[in-house]
Order: sequence, then C-alpha cells, then structure tokens
Amino acid sequence: VIVTLKPHVTEKQYGDFMSRLRDMKLRFYEIDDLHSRSVSIVCGISGLDTDMIRAMEIVEDVKRIDEPYKAANRKCHPADTVVEIPVAGSDPVKIGGGHFCMIAGPCSVESEGQIIGIAEKLKTLGARILRGGVFKLRSSPYSFQGLGTEGIGFLLKAKAQTGLPVVTEIADISQLPEFEKIDVIQVGTRNMQNFLLLKELGKLQKPVLLKRGASSTIDEWLMAADYILSGGNGNVILCERGIRTFETATRNTLDIAAVPVVKDFSHLPVIVDPSHATGYAKYVESMSLASVAAGAHGLIIEVHDNPEAALSDGQQSITPGEFAVLSKKAEILRKAKVLADSDVTGGIQNGF
Amino acid sequence: VIVTLKPHVTEKQYGDFMSRLRDMKLRFYEIDDLHSRSVSIVCGISGLDTDMIRAMEIVEDVKRIDEPYKAANRKCHPADTVVEIPVAGSDPVKIGGGHFCMIAGPCSVESEGQIIGIAEKLKTLGARILRGGVFKLRSSPYSFQGLGTEGIGFLLKAKAQTGLPVVTEIADISQLPEFEKIDVIQVGTRNMQNFLLLKELGKLQKPVLLKRGASSTIDEWLMAADYILSGGNGNVILCERGIRTFETATRNTLDIAAVPVVKDFSHLPVIVDPSHATGYAKYVESMSLASVAAGAHGLIIEVHDNPEAALSDGQQSITPGEFAVLSKKAEILRKAKVLADSDVTGGIQNGF
Amino acid sequence: VIVTLKPHVTEKQYGDFMSRLRDMKLRFYEIDDLHSRSVSIVCGISGLDTDMIRAMEIVEDVKRIDEPYKAANRKCHPADTVVEIPVAGSDPVKIGGGHFCMIAGPCSVESEGQIIGIAEKLKTLGARILRGGVFKLRSSPYSFQGLGTEGIGFLLKAKAQTGLPVVTEIADISQLPEFEKIDVIQVGTRNMQNFLLLKELGKLQKPVLLKRGASSTIDEWLMAADYILSGGNGNVILCERGIRTFETATRNTLDIAAVPVVKDFSHLPVIVDPSHATGYAKYVESMSLASVAAGAHGLIIEVHDNPEAALSDGQQSITPGEFAVLSKKAEILRKAKVLADSDVTGGIQNGF
Amino acid sequence: VIVTLKPHVTEKQYGDFMSRLRDMKLRFYEIDDLHSRSVSIVCGISGLDTDMIRAMEIVEDVKRIDEPYKAANRKCHPADTVVEIPVAGSDPVKIGGGHFCMIAGPCSVESEGQIIGIAEKLKTLGARILRGGVFKLRSSPYSFQGLGTEGIGFLLKAKAQTGLPVVTEIADISQLPEFEKIDVIQVGTRNMQNFLLLKELGKLQKPVLLKRGASSTIDEWLMAADYILSGGNGNVILCERGIRTFETATRNTLDIAAVPVVKDFSHLPVIVDPSHATGYAKYVESMSLASVAAGAHGLIIEVHDNPEAALSDGQQSITPGEFAVLSKKAEILRKAKVLADSDVTGGIQNGF
Repeated sequence: VIVTLKPHVTEKQYGDFMSRLRDMKLRFYEIDDLHSRSVSIVCGISGLDTDMIRAMEIVEDVKRIDEPYKAANRKCHPADTVVEIPVAGSDPVKIGGGHFCMIAGPCSVESEGQIIGIAEKLKTLGARILRGGVFKLRSSPYSFQGLGTEGIGFLLKAKAQTGLPVVTEIADISQLPEFEKIDVIQVGTRNMQNFLLLKELGKLQKPVLLKRGASSTIDEWLMAADYILSGGNGNVILCERGIRTFETATRNTLDIAAVPVVKDFSHLPVIVDPSHATGYAKYVESMSLASVAAGAHGLIIEVHDNPEAALSDGQQSITPGEFAVLSKKAEILRKAKVLADSDVTGGIQNGF
Repeated sequence: VIVTLKPHVTEKQYGDFMSRLRDMKLRFYEIDDLHSRSVSIVCGISGLDTDMIRAMEIVEDVKRIDEPYKAANRKCHPADTVVEIPVAGSDPVKIGGGHFCMIAGPCSVESEGQIIGIAEKLKTLGARILRGGVFKLRSSPYSFQGLGTEGIGFLLKAKAQTGLPVVTEIADISQLPEFEKIDVIQVGTRNMQNFLLLKELGKLQKPVLLKRGASSTIDEWLMAADYILSGGNGNVILCERGIRTFETATRNTLDIAAVPVVKDFSHLPVIVDPSHATGYAKYVESMSLASVAAGAHGLIIEVHDNPEAALSDGQQSITPGEFAVLSKKAEILRKAKVLADSDVTGGIQNGF
Repeated sequence: VIVTLKPHVTEKQYGDFMSRLRDMKLRFYEIDDLHSRSVSIVCGISGLDTDMIRAMEIVEDVKRIDEPYKAANRKCHPADTVVEIPVAGSDPVKIGGGHFCMIAGPCSVESEGQIIGIAEKLKTLGARILRGGVFKLRSSPYSFQGLGTEGIGFLLKAKAQTGLPVVTEIADISQLPEFEKIDVIQVGTRNMQNFLLLKELGKLQKPVLLKRGASSTIDEWLMAADYILSGGNGNVILCERGIRTFETATRNTLDIAAVPVVKDFSHLPVIVDPSHATGYAKYVESMSLASVAAGAHGLIIEVHDNPEAALSDGQQSITPGEFAVLSKKAEILRKAKVLADSDVTGGIQNGF
Repeated sequence: VIVTLKPHVTEKQYGDFMSRLRDMKLRFYEIDDLHSRSVSIVCGISGLDTDMIRAMEIVEDVKRIDEPYKAANRKCHPADTVVEIPVAGSDPVKIGGGHFCMIAGPCSVESEGQIIGIAEKLKTLGARILRGGVFKLRSSPYSFQGLGTEGIGFLLKAKAQTGLPVVTEIADISQLPEFEKIDVIQVGTRNMQNFLLLKELGKLQKPVLLKRGASSTIDEWLMAADYILSGGNGNVILCERGIRTFETATRNTLDIAAVPVVKDFSHLPVIVDPSHATGYAKYVESMSLASVAAGAHGLIIEVHDNPEAALSDGQQSITPGEFAVLSKKAEILRKAKVLADSDVTGGIQNGF
C-alpha cells in the first residue's frame, strides 16, 4: 500500500502520522520524493482497511500494490482448487484443475414435463449438470418471475430421473432452506455483492457458483469470493457472464480475458456463460469455443426445447440440436487444446 | 415496440406470426421495407414482455420505442410527487416539487455520543434529515461492517434528542422489523435490483430512498421504482450517486444530467449524493452546488466530526464546519435559481 | 427509422411534418399509439441523415432499426470479402473467407538489424506478414515517438530480405507518399474516426487494416469502413484490439464477440490483436487461441527479440520462442475448428 | 513510481535490475514485503517512460503514484492560467482565473447570411466568442460534411461585422494555413490524441480549445495538453464535453466533476459544452447552470436560428430566445456563486 502525503505537511503532522502507523503495528518505509512525500506500508495480502488510512488528514491518496483478497489469492493457495459435486452411485463431477464441465438447461423451469424432458436429452449430449431458474430476478416487475418453490420440486424430479446434479439461483437468504437438496447454489450477477447472503453461504460446504457482477472488476469478484471462502466454504466456482460496456450489439461484453486473469491470480475454477454474455443464440457457439480455447474450466449454456415459447430469455437459448453440435465441437477443441498444451510447449519451445 | 423480422421469411411463417400477435390481442402495424419486413406493435406504456416476442423464430430484433416503466412514468402521472416525512410536533419535511431538502450525517453510526453530537450540530446548520449507516455493505470482508441493531438504537436516540427524522440503509429483507421507527428506508446502490426487497417495500407506506445502481441505466432505475410503486407505496425518492465508468480520478462519475432526465421522464423527486459520487471531500462542495443548479430536489452528504477517525469512507466525509459553508452556499445558489427561474423565463423570453 | 412525435402535436403541425417527409421523397407508415404518435420511415440501408429528422420541432426521438452503414453491410454484399496482399514471386497472402493469416513483429522498428533479424525468425515460424511501428502515437509527449521515415526504410529492407509483405501504421495524411511500397496501411485505434484520412485511403487500392477505436461501437467501426469502401477501395481488413471499460486488470477488454458479430453483419475480414487488447505478454497466447476458436480471420501479434529492451510496449511483447509455441498451438486449434465445423454440423445436427 | 517484482526473483536478477536503475540515474527505495519485493522510484513529475521498466523481465507490474503530465500540472505552475483572446479596438476576452466566458453559435456554418445573422443576435445576448463548424467530422460518410474553406470566409465576415472573435474546429494539419485569422483553434474530441496536430499547434501562440476525448481519462487529456504546452504554446483552454458510458438517455455523460478535478490538478482554464454532452436541447440549460455552479470558466453552446432546419446537430441546438434566457440565468447563478465564495467562506467557517 502506497500512501502519498499532501504537500506542505509540517514535521509535527508527519511525526503524528508515523506514530499512528506504529501504533497500528504496521511495517513501513518512508519515501522522499522531489515534490512529495510518501510512505509504503508493508501489508502483503492482509486485510488492511485502507479506508482508515485514506481518511487521515495529511493523506493525499492511497494506492494498493498488493491484491485486496486473501483466501481466493493464488499466492496464499498455489494449487488449483477442484470443486467436486457428488453424484449418486457414480463418480463426482469435478470442476477446476484439468477437469472440464458442461452445464446446460433452460433459463427457467416452466413445468415438470419440460425440465425432465430437456434433462434427459441433455444427459445424452454431454451435459454433466442441469441448470434451471426458479426464483427469477427480472428488471421489470411486469415480466415472468419464475415458478418458485414449485420449480424446485420439478428440478429435483429431473435430478432423480436422470441422475444429473442440479444448479439453480438463490434470490434471498430466506430461501436457503429450500436449497437443501440442490447440488450447486448459484449467486447471480445482481447478488454478487449481497454480502449477507455470501456470508451465509460461507457457513455451508455446498458448492457455490458465483457469477461476476455485470459491472464488477475482477478484484471485486475475488473479494466477493473471499466472503464465502473466509467463512469456511472452499467450494466456490467463478462464472464470467459478460460485463456492461457502451457496446450494444451484444447484451453484455464477454470479458474473455477474465479467464486467464482469474487463473493467474486465483486458484478457483472459472467457467463461462456465453448465453447471458451475448444475449443472442447465434453467438453462443463461437463464444463457447473461444472460452474452451481460453482455458475455461466449463460452460453454462441455456438450452430450451422451443426457445420461441420460452417464458424468459428465449432469444439467447439454443435448441437441444444446436447444443449437440456445440457440445461435440467444444469437445474437439478441448482435446486439441490439451494436445497443444502438452505436446507443443515441451517440444517446440526447446528449439529456441 | 418495433419488431424486425429475419430476411427470407416465408409467407406461411409470416402468417403464423401475425396470428400469434392477434391471439395476444396486440394492435400492430405491418411495415414493408426494401430489405426487411418489420412490425410496429402498439403497446404504449404497458408492461408488454418483449422477451416473448424476441424469442420467436422469425424475429431478428426488437426495439422498444416507449418506456418500459409505467408507475414511475410522468406520462401516467403528470404532477410532481412530493414525499412527506412526518416530524413530531412540527410540519413534515417535504421532498419533491418545489421543495428542497438537505440530508446529512456520518457514513456509519459509530457510537451513541458520536451520532447525537453530530445530529445536534447538523440541525443548527440546515440539515432536515439525519443519515447514518448501521448495516454496512463493504466490498471487502475485512472492512468494518457496521454496528447493526445497536446502531439503530443510537440513531433513534439521536432522533429523539433532536427531532430530526432519520434515514438508514437496509441490507436484507430480514432486517425489516428493525426499521419500524426509521423514517426513511434507504435502498443502496447494490440492492437497487434486489427485487424481492423492493416488493416488500412496496407493501409499506414508509418513504424509500432508492439509490441508483452504480451501473444501472435510468430506465432500469425507474423500473426498480416501479417494483415499489406498483405494490402500492408511492413514496419513492430517487438518489443519483455516480455511475461506474473508465475514469478513475473520482470514485464514480456523477451523472448530473440524470437530474433533468429523471424530472423529464418521471414525477418522482430526485436528490444527489455528491459524497459517494466523487469519493473525495474536496469535490463535495462544487458537486453539491452543481446539483442545486441542475434542479435536484435535495442533497445527501456525509459529514463526520473527525473524518480522520471515521470507521468508513472518511476520505469523502466533510466536517461540520465545511458543511456549514456548503449549506449556506447551497442556499444562496438555490435562491438564485428560484429567482432566475421565475423572473427570467417570463421576462426575457418574451423579447424574442 | 422510427420517429416518435411529441405529445400534444396539433393537426396542423402533423400535416406540415407529413408534407416535409413527402417532399423528401420518403416512404413511410403512420402509427397511432395510445399515448403517442410515431412514424416509421422506410429507408432500408440507405444513408438517410437522421439528424435532419431528429431536429424537427415536433419530433421527440428517432431510432434506427436498420444499420447505418451500406458498403460494409452483408445485406448489400452477401459474399465474404477476401483481401489479397501480393507477394513477389509467390502466391498472394489472403485474409478473409476461409483463409487465416498470422501477422507478427515488434511494436516499433528500432534498427535495421533488429527488424531484419526478427523478420527472418518470424518467417520460419509461420508469420505471413511483418508488422513494425514507425510513426508512433504515444499518450505522453515524453515517450519514444518512433523512427519515422528512417524506420520505413528498415522495414522495406526486411521485406526485401525475407519476402514478407509489411504493415505499418500511418499517423497523418501527409505521410501517405512514404507508404508507396508498404503493403498494408494500418489505421490505428486513435485514427479510426480520422475521416479525412479514411477518405484519402478510399482513393487507393492498397489494403487497409482498420483497427477498432478503443471506445467505438461496432456500428461506428463499420461506418468508418464505409468511408474507405464508398471511395472505391474494397480492401479493408478490420482488427479488434480491445475496448475501454472499467476493468483495469487488462489494458483493454478484448471484445471477442465482435468477431462473430462482424461476420454476421459485414462481409469484411476481421482479425484480432491480443497484444494491445490485454497489455500483458502472459495473456497473449490464451487470447490468440480464443480468437481462433471464435472464428477470427487472423491475428496480429507483437514479438520482440528482447522485450526487456523494447523501446515501446515491451510488457505486452512475446519472444520469438513464445511465438513459435503460440503459432503451433494456433495451428492445432484452427485445424480442430475446421474439422469441427465441417464434420459435426453435417453429421450430428441431423440426429435432432 | 512503484515497481512490483515477480515472486522468486534470484539475487543475481535482482542485482542486475538494481544496476540498470542506477545506470538510468534513478533515485529509488527498496521495499521488502512478506510476499513480494518492490521498488519505489523517485521520479517526481518527470517524463520517466514507465514502459521501459514495465518491460523488464523481473517486473510484475508498475504503478504511477505521481501524475504523468508536467507542463499542465499545477504543481509545476501554481498560478491559474488566463488565456487572452485579442479583440480589435477593445479589451481582450479572458478565459481562466476569475474570468467567465460565454461562447455560442451554430453547430455548422451554413451560409453567410445565417452566420452573420446569428452572430449579431448572440452579441447582444452576452456571447463573447462566436463558434461555427466548417470542417465537420461526421460518423457517417452520408451526413453533411461542412462548407469547408467557404465557411471560413463566412465566419470571418461575421467576425468583421460584429467584432466577435471566432472559434472553429480543425480537422487536419493540412488545414492550418486557413486558420490564420481564426482566433481560437478547436481540437475536437476525435482529434484529442492526434499528436502530430497537437505538436504543430504547440509551435503557434494562438489559443487552442482542446476538447476532451469522449473516452479519455483526465490524465490522458492533460497529457494531450502537454503536447501543446511543451511545444511552447501556453494558451490552452480545456473543454469537457461528455464521456461515453453505458447510459443512453443522453448522447454522452457530462462528467461535471471533471471541472473541479481539472482545477485541482492543473492551472489551465476549463469550460463545458452542454450541447454535445447531452445531445438534447431540453437539457442544455440545466447543465449550463450546473457547470457555472461547479466552477467552470465558461460555456460553449450550440445556438441555431431554426434548429429544425439545421444541417447538423439540430436536436441539441437551442434558439436565440432560449439562449437569451440561459445567458441571463447563468449570469444570475454566476453572481450568486461569486457572492457565496467570497462571503460565506470567511464568515461562517470561523464559527467552527
């Protein structure tokens, strides 16, 4: 943390400031510049509350050099986290490290028949986890708001029928009891900074799929993960789903570089949601393949039997037929990437 | 709503589409262009769910021409809404229409003495409502999280002592019972799209201060207001607090034009929070004056007796002394604006 | 184009407005809504100047439904454009359609030895075109500004020595004569809307590499292309290089979805610059592979023999050794994608 | 400048790095942290090219603590710059310091009669400088591109007739000779980083109105000013004109806080263009008053006799009648602000 002091600070003020830093048991270096004085505080990856220092009268500005998150930081936890989702009578589904996972399903659970029907198809097409929204958060109060509790029941029936673990979004802390049999709890983009909810999820051991806020920096996203991790729940899966920018040709702008950046700074798995990122079914396949090539640990894709009749987000849903193609192509690219990573790096690089 | 169809639509597909629109009892116009066909659906300021239409197979794109919010729309409610906050043994505080209201107080309630002390000063300096955070939502789990319930008690003591109505932020639905004696419930920027919370607030009659999401469009903000209004609670005060952009010289970018835009499109009162918008105490005064000149119905300002020692947001808090100056200047500018608006418009404009 | 009229328009005003539209020989439809009146003007993909209509007194707002660009529009030119860059004594390099092209070289040409040395290496490693900056546009006047004319000479020597065609950026119209023997003229992100320059380039037949403005929408980018195309030069190659957003973990945010969007709306080839998009050498490989998977027609990559000593942009330059690995991996992924696209789409989709 | 080193740097690498810094005659401090090593380089407000350091192999990241601009920096030049524009047979117009200046005129010069007619009106209504576009830079090649050289002539006739100095935008270096008799040369938002043009303007003594790039940070804007100032031309006037954000209710987002920020960091005058910032005539007045209250040194406003018939930007132009009102109101608010600044600060603050 670098603290720049205001110009014209008196020796008295400076001395008092130094004393306070010493009282706070901080280790620091004093730096004298031509025009300004600054202090470098050694805090490493601690949870130093820079706001306190920022507010001191002689402080002009404060810049963090180190990262503001700890538990999610790869420096504190060098090995990749692999999240395991148990499957009755079978090996668990793994996300992270060298494992790749395909999650698919409709935006909203609309009926028992719908969700079971699509789950059965998706299972044969390579999906390992079933998604389906039940508590919908919609910008407009006049839009379909989800089936609620009834939908949870339909989702669990689809799980029972197909053996696929299920993921669905939680809208509020009060709904937690209903998620007992849900395998992965999704925290949506609008709740990424619902810190009370994150703290509650930190008390569980259930995997949490933490979507990036549509206007959150990667730093903020990892701090949000820290709310869950620091509570004791290490099963966090990050999900990039597009950020808000000035571009309007797509619903959001898929920040594909977030994949390598997160893998660089954190040990947590990171998957991509190309459906929300683009908002158009026609761009889902190419963005899925790009995500695989970028090194994502998985994909979460909206699939609907009849997108025309979907009660929400039909425009960005693909059909099972399109998913079959996408899934097959993603598999081809993933194998090519594994091959490239293992073969090439060793072989060719030596020549130089 | 303008619906553009894909090229090469067959007559059969087109006929089916028309039938569906007719089934939905929509009134529409067909438009034949040189390269494309489109349909203009007459829905006015209704709650038509455009997602349904967007998902139809032959639809290329859908654009709204009308606004997506109803209850907050000035077209549906031409007169200015004036929100009244009752004051024991005195006239209510009014926000909206021709009324201007100054809200001030510390970022966080830190102790009984602190909040009562500052409330007494602020009362003499022109503040009409006292603010003070109790349930803090912080990006980092390692930062001060607020006094919680105890803080509510301190705030109510300050209210009892000074007679100033109080506003504080709610973090979660489960806290609602604690807000019984709070005069105005603040919904913070991160909860602007916490739709379940908004729905609950819609069932009350208590005034709600709805902050704009840091990355929300004005349309989304007014749709969020619709969640409260359509539930039956008409006492919504909007608060512009800066949006997230690429500029880093200030904490956020104060979207000052949101003031006239909201007044143009909605009947709701709109105030400005220059403290969060800029993040620096030194810019609070000029942004307050700019807000007054732009026509804001009020200001909400962070004031701390000793910003250096504040437990949160000290860098953007001004002192009571600075608030006294700001308050006086704001009053001078507000009077000048009232004078200008009444005198000039009538007088000079006639000459042309 | 949909024109919404203000409320309370008189019949007289409406009649006058209709007459003006008729005078302008526009074909239009009148639409009566519950709360407002609007007019849909049929202009297709013409160059209708909507500003004129927007300014009319009774007009509330104007929205385009059709695209504002013509020459770059796939609707006007359905077949993919393939740009050919002649190579002395050999087949031309092709960009667009099914062709993929790797462009590489240092950010800046620094000396004759440097550029020839690196060109020779890159040629053996799969690069088909050599890049090298000569007229540098730097944010700070205190940074290295490029070798200028001398650099053009060095670049042409490298071309003569290796046979690789060369691309370099033009900074101003006055430099055009110096570009006579340059194979591809690059228009940088800051000049994307230098319309006078674009018009001059429209008079040539030389290929132009048009980088996207860091804050330009795809619509604006294609309108900029229209400046060149409508002048008669059809050899435009688009280059996505990241856009400016609030995220600071990378220099810019690579808008990877721009690749399929451009291919959807335009017939022009589109390549990606992962070096400028991310700003860090360590993310260049993954973003290159993602671009290949997304369907980009090529890559342009900064390679420097000794990035530590580079006079500009060293942090984002990779070494020839790293380029060798990247190039090999990109080739593996590209083949996998071609395989996936040909095999899968036919095969599997039929099953559904 | 704080340089963070990569983890696991060897002593040898570290020693070499230190030697290089010493060779560069840099003064620096070494900082040992728990997890990382960093170096604080003392460079003050120099033009240190951080790219060079950023590229060194053992460097993880580089952050500037000091500002990257020198000539525009208030630390190097504490007193306010007041730019003077000579007026034949009269006192010069002054912009900066305590002086306020109103600039007005049509978006485009359309005919001799038009510009002279409007200039005469504006002169009586408080405008001190006449604006009028001649070389227009339009996003679409199908829009009106300005009268060019002929327009310069019309503008100079209006100057001769009224005595008002004139400002118009330059589109390219090659047009410089035509600007000989133009009083203030405007550099538009798209040319803010046309560094060759800025360097040429740095060789003159003529005042330059430097508009902020629509997606430029304030740091970049001041670096652009440095290009002109460091060439020897100290007559730079900055103009905030709105930045590009996700909000679409206005054409751009007026960054009103840029006014106090620029006044804090730089000595240069800063004015506001509310017409381009909002894009709608109906918001121009409130944003003008807000700018005055925020402390802007002036306003530049689009005024057209008949906005309906304007050849460009009619929707954001106000009429002379509206300008008369705005001008009068702005004067009232400016006087109120001067009064507030002089009276209040002294008086009240003492009480606390």
